Amino acid sequence: MFVPGFRFSGVAAGLKKHGGLDLGLILADTPAVAAGVFTRNLVRAAPVQLGERRVLQGPVRAILVNSGNANAFTGEAGMDAALRTTRALGALLGCSEEAILPSSTGVIGQVLPAEKVEAALPLLIANADPNRLEHFADAIMTTDRFRKISEQSLATASGQISFVGVCKGAGMIHPDLGGAGKLPQPPGPPHATMLAYALTDVCAEREQLQTCLEEAIDVTFNTVSVDGDTSTNDTVLLLASGVSGVTLDSKRLTEALIELLRPLARAMVQDGEGAEHVVDIRVKGLPTREEARLVARSIATSPLVKTAFAGKDANWGRLMMAAGKSGVLFDPGRATISIDGVILCQDGKGQGPEQDVEACKRMRKASFEILVDLGQGSAEFTYTTCDMGHAYIDVNAGYRS
Amino acid sequence: MFVPGFRFSGVAAGLKKHGGLDLGLILADTPAVAAGVFTRNLVRAAPVQLGERRVLQGPVRAILVNSGNANAFTGEAGMDAALRTTRALGALLGCSEEAILPSSTGVIGQVLPAEKVEAALPLLIANADPNRLEHFADAIMTTDRFRKISEQSLATASGQISFVGVCKGAGMIHPDLGGAGKLPQPPGPPHATMLAYALTDVCAEREQLQTCLEEAIDVTFNTVSVDGDTSTNDTVLLLASGVSGVTLDSKRLTEALIELLRPLARAMVQDGEGAEHVVDIRVKGLPTREEARLVARSIATSPLVKTAFAGKDANWGRLMMAAGKSGVLFDPGRATISIDGVILCQDGKGQGPEQDVEACKRMRKASFEILVDLGQGSAEFTYTTCDMGHAYIDVNAGYRS
Repeated sequence: MFVPGFRFSGVAAGLKKHGGLDLGLILADTPAVAAGVFTRNLVRAAPVQLGERRVLQGPVRAILVNSGNANAFTGEAGMDAALRTTRALGALLGCSEEAILPSSTGVIGQVLPAEKVEAALPLLIANADPNRLEHFADAIMTTDRFRKISEQSLATASGQISFVGVCKGAGMIHPDLGGAGKLPQPPGPPHATMLAYALTDVCAEREQLQTCLEEAIDVTFNTVSVDGDTSTNDTVLLLASGVSGVTLDSKRLTEALIELLRPLARAMVQDGEGAEHVVDIRVKGLPTREEARLVARSIATSPLVKTAFAGKDANWGRLMMAAGKSGVLFDPGRATISIDGVILCQDGKGQGPEQDVEACKRMRKASFEILVDLGQGSAEFTYTTCDMGHAYIDVNAGYRS
Repeated sequence: MFVPGFRFSGVAAGLKKHGGLDLGLILADTPAVAAGVFTRNLVRAAPVQLGERRVLQGPVRAILVNSGNANAFTGEAGMDAALRTTRALGALLGCSEEAILPSSTGVIGQVLPAEKVEAALPLLIANADPNRLEHFADAIMTTDRFRKISEQSLATASGQISFVGVCKGAGMIHPDLGGAGKLPQPPGPPHATMLAYALTDVCAEREQLQTCLEEAIDVTFNTVSVDGDTSTNDTVLLLASGVSGVTLDSKRLTEALIELLRPLARAMVQDGEGAEHVVDIRVKGLPTREEARLVARSIATSPLVKTAFAGKDANWGRLMMAAGKSGVLFDPGRATISIDGVILCQDGKGQGPEQDVEACKRMRKASFEILVDLGQGSAEFTYTTCDMGHAYIDVNAGYRS
């Protein structure tokens, strides 16, 4: 799995407490056109601040990612570490530090140990290879249980275009990403520590890449939630090498990015800390998509809903509670709710214990859909979430210890 | 513990799956002046709809509360059951059904079995006694681990005034109560299934009672959260018998209600499903109280923050993450965070591992305070929350089974 114009690498720099690959590199053979979206959390890690500024400035030569340390809320010392490590990489590559985009993920509140990163850079560069995407994918993982990679290719009249995507993320996942240069705004709803990188050999201007990426993000990463907690470090970067020599219209480019990113977003939920079920919360029958989004989000982030999923309990009362607290106006008497096709409530009326029992059975599946039809409009929105059970507590009640 | 003018009772009507007291009565010897606040969840149980209408109409003779069934999202059948049971009680008491306020708590989505309630009413009335508040308190409990009662008395130049308060609530707790007759509005943020009743022998008009109750609620029940999930049934009712013949100015009445209700609100958090720690999230240093409230609420409802509490992990990075996703603008570089007096971060800078270790020790306490000072104003707000550990999952992943 590779894309013309890019090489990948991953090494162990000693940043993770228990060892393992923790420093990753994406190297563009020649400067690539770049676009990016970043967390709207007001507290933004040093690499997010730096990366956002640089992605607006010009072509990018490399992306340097470490796990084991988020370098978030680390003040000037954290920014110094991000500057110093990217400067060191720029010097080794013979390019400006401005052409290096940094990302960090891991514990918040500790300054990135720049010297460990610097010491590992020569090996990191030496190992870079077009066929080592897996090394990179492994090096950026934190609480992830599995590697997350996707690919797409498009045949056009002018030639083939390749895409690969790679991401990490399992907890602090509720992406709400905004375009580079449009922040800080008053932040919107929550997001999470997810890092994702998309690479392509398409020929495109920065503005086109940025617009298409933002459109694709809105229907992929910005529609998933593990815990409703928005990270200080969420970043998605898109680099285009142009090696194919082929251009695409924006509609096709956006569609290709959606196809590329959707399985990655879903993989994060599947890997949600301790999760056993991936649940699509599809809310329809409202006047606007934004209203449907708010209801779906309220259900997708409710602890009582998510613990009911863990208990395989078709507790549709909790679904209605969560819909009702969303701030969106609707008539509960027109609501119809089903789980994996089993109708539990039709026009506001419960359908009885037999339906409940059948729905509880269906909830043993690894993935299922909750359909909430509020019967007063044609807009809809689907949020993808997971259950919250004992394993979630295991992961998060002792993360740093 | 009693208040002149009121009698109490609690019996087992067979509504709870595993038996026990499940039907409670508060009986006013003569019609009492009443005020109330109700959930702002758009999905509101039949008794909430009925109680809100009736509390606006006139004096109240009795409050009839059942546990084991929330009679929420039960449509016309649920409303029929609420009407029928209050009508039956009115007939037995020789008063209009309009003078009976109903409350229900328990599973959502199942119609209250009115015949079981009706069959239990004669015994319920016969048992009513001024000294049986405990029977009532026990009859309204669901997942509560302990009974919740408080009292206050005020000596005035004209004589003594008595207050008692009683409540239930352990899960689906995030009250956001609005005054009677002011709903449905576009609902605000989440609340929870809590029921609370305050009784006094003060002499007061309805308007004064309502105003003072709303002011007291805003700084008591509306500042606590167990899970961020707002119930369909939250209700607080205040009845005044007037038997003391003493009036109070609104300031003193509000203060007395705050003193009465605060320990009840705190008791709900202490009894939060599976909770081991009560944590006060005090946010200061913002321009407005509403901004401080939003930041405190974001921290108090974050799963990652609450699981860190369960793990006794002084993870102040998660606190900053949660503050940053609140939607409130502030400068992270001016933030100071302490746990139980141990400063972990001063003006945006971490204070090192020794402080972390000390704070982790302090977090073993049954209750402690998190202070987040954002250094840019004089407004503050304190939210009271609890940890989220394995016991929370135990309670909620199998509630109905």
